[in-house]
Amino acid sequence: MNKDVPDIVIARLPIYLRTLNLLLEDGKEITSSQELGSILGISPAQIRKDLSHFGEFGKQGTGYNIKYLISQLRKILHVDREWDMILIGAGALGHAMAHYPGFREQGFNIVAVFDNDPSKIGQEWSNLVVRDAKEMEQFVAEKGIRIAILAVPARAAQAVADRLVKAGIKAILNYAPTIIQVPEGVIVEHIDPIAHLQYMTYYLE
Amino acid sequence: MNKDVPDIVIARLPIYLRTLNLLLEDGKEITSSQELGSILGISPAQIRKDLSHFGEFGKQGTGYNIKYLISQLRKILHVDREWDMILIGAGALGHAMAHYPGFREQGFNIVAVFDNDPSKIGQEWSNLVVRDAKEMEQFVAEKGIRIAILAVPARAAQAVADRLVKAGIKAILNYAPTIIQVPEGVIVEHIDPIAHLQYMTYYLE
Repeated sequence: MNKDVPDIVIARLPIYLRTLNLLLEDGKEITSSQELGSILGISPAQIRKDLSHFGEFGKQGTGYNIKYLISQLRKILHVDREWDMILIGAGALGHAMAHYPGFREQGFNIVAVFDNDPSKIGQEWSNLVVRDAKEMEQFVAEKGIRIAILAVPARAAQAVADRLVKAGIKAILNYAPTIIQVPEGVIVEHIDPIAHLQYMTYYLE
Repeated sequence: MNKDVPDIVIARLPIYLRTLNLLLEDGKEITSSQELGSILGISPAQIRKDLSHFGEFGKQGTGYNIKYLISQLRKILHVDREWDMILIGAGALGHAMAHYPGFREQGFNIVAVFDNDPSKIGQEWSNLVVRDAKEMEQFVAEKGIRIAILAVPARAAQAVADRLVKAGIKAILNYAPTIIQVPEGVIVEHIDPIAHLQYMTYYLE
């Protein structure tokens, strides 16, 4: 495997994986870079080039075997296993995420929720209990958790992220509407609906 | 203004705008491509090149006036005005979004919520009432709404999107975990936490 694949290529692999899963659900067995490209609005050449970083997944003219390509992409992205995650923030958004079945369906399990609000600590959410944020570091260390979802107010985000990183978290999905700084070796992905809206309004007159 | 600015450049402008707003909140008046770059992990040269598509925003060596650059970026992105939006889907995620103050703070107002579940229609959410999805098209047409947030199950997303587009919606923020197809002239942005998680696990061993 080529270790120097550009980040932007890696970012497209989950999109290909999702599309392949949808095609499989539709009962398809074979697809092509043309078909994927037309669904996604990406050129077939780009898709072939992206995939070529990781090997040969189809023969010229015969297309891709969907199940095989899915299994290969899952291995490449390290989602051929399950990942445990913690969720920080038991507000409305945290509540929605803890109850969203899509994470677990894709192998991402929220195994604990933390908040520092005494009125929330102890609440029972399906099979989770909201825990005191003071216990966060110990939980991360003991369970070897690597991934955290941050759903706290903007003003609290950096301090919580610092604590998470110190405890051993390596990947943060940040829903807080602010930029958080992390040391090298830790990745942050920002879920930023405002940025998406502002991108779209550029194209609206 | 150059009308042929690459999409990827436009997608970075909201990120610059957010960063500038954070600097302004911190009491700063002047910034530089170096400072923005180090906060964002983007090269200063890239930032200067991105901004140069739209004019001259700073003099060599004196940096950018933050307030001025914010006002210019707001104009460029068409967020120097308010936008009304509708929200489709009154589940847990829709509920969290309707109560999220960040949209309104940034000039994006959710003015109506629609669902087709009789147990949800009529619910009062702060200053909103959940409306019957049957009334969706008429509302969009009468109020001239251009932006919709889609928080419906994956299996319903395409049909709802088709109805929205027919009624006049031009921009869809899609939270449904599926790909939706729209005709040219309509933009979809997909909020896809699973894709972000799978991107991050690539870098975790």
